[in-house]
Amino acid sequence: MAQDKTLDDLFLDTLKDIYFAEKHIVKTLPKMARAAQSDELRTGFEQHLEETGGHVERLEQIFEMLGKPARGKTCDAILGITEEGKSIMDEFKGTSALDAGLVSAAQAVEHYEIARYGTLKTWARQLGMSDAVRLLDQTLSEEIATDRKLSQLGIGDANRKAAA
Amino acid sequence: MAQDKTLDDLFLDTLKDIYFAEKHIVKTLPKMARAAQSDELRTGFEQHLEETGGHVERLEQIFEMLGKPARGKTCDAILGITEEGKSIMDEFKGTSALDAGLVSAAQAVEHYEIARYGTLKTWARQLGMSDAVRLLDQTLSEEIATDRKLSQLGIGDANRKAAA
Repeated sequence: MAQDKTLDDLFLDTLKDIYFAEKHIVKTLPKMARAAQSDELRTGFEQHLEETGGHVERLEQIFEMLGKPARGKTCDAILGITEEGKSIMDEFKGTSALDAGLVSAAQAVEHYEIARYGTLKTWARQLGMSDAVRLLDQTLSEEIATDRKLSQLGIGDANRKAAA
Repeated sequence: MAQDKTLDDLFLDTLKDIYFAEKHIVKTLPKMARAAQSDELRTGFEQHLEETGGHVERLEQIFEMLGKPARGKTCDAILGITEEGKSIMDEFKGTSALDAGLVSAAQAVEHYEIARYGTLKTWARQLGMSDAVRLLDQTLSEEIATDRKLSQLGIGDANRKAAA
């Protein structure tokens, strides 16, 4: 009989998934910043890029706690989400709706991360990994704050311009 | 010079995206329900399937308001997210961590929908489509409620079992 897989295995699997996703986001954010029309949105993407570097480091600390090498596992979800963002950038390039589309694409990314960090935090707590809970919670709070900032930007400048 | 694309175009584009996603979810949920080990989780997926039928109908009403045919547009994001869910079902089949993995996969789906409906609702308001705002808000509230129920299930039965 095959060995039972446990929550520890699922935790490690999901950690590799979000590690791949975060590293992919590090490559995507500069493209989004360059595409942004408003200074506010561009600055927002640049600030989030810096923050994302910290998220990668926190994940590496958790891999270390587990005594495992920090290795990503291809995350089809983030590839699909960012592929859609790329289509929006191509289709709406040079139009007044581009920034609204960029905000929307970025919020889809944030929500993916919020889902994954929420899950990982719940599991870390159940596995008694209190240091990991703390690190995951810090990143989760930052992703939620970024999503809220994007909502404000979406309600404000980017969309008013697109609707004009 | 090419015609400017506006928020109306972006709204229609994103409506097609989530319409494709909802119809894909209608096909995916029965598989997740069959895979679920706990009765509570299976019932949860079955109930959400019924609700999802309503979400599809609301989207069709909005297409009608716009005078456009209800047509989906391939949504790479939902394909990627559900592909990951399928991998979890395959890898954790018959293990004690399966339900925890299913909850996690379902929450990734919910968060994608929450991001898209939040965006569409914001845009509908800016475009002065108050009937669409009402419909989008109803679905958004149901997706948020489903995500919360999944969090409760994740904290409860599914994960306690997986950690045992």
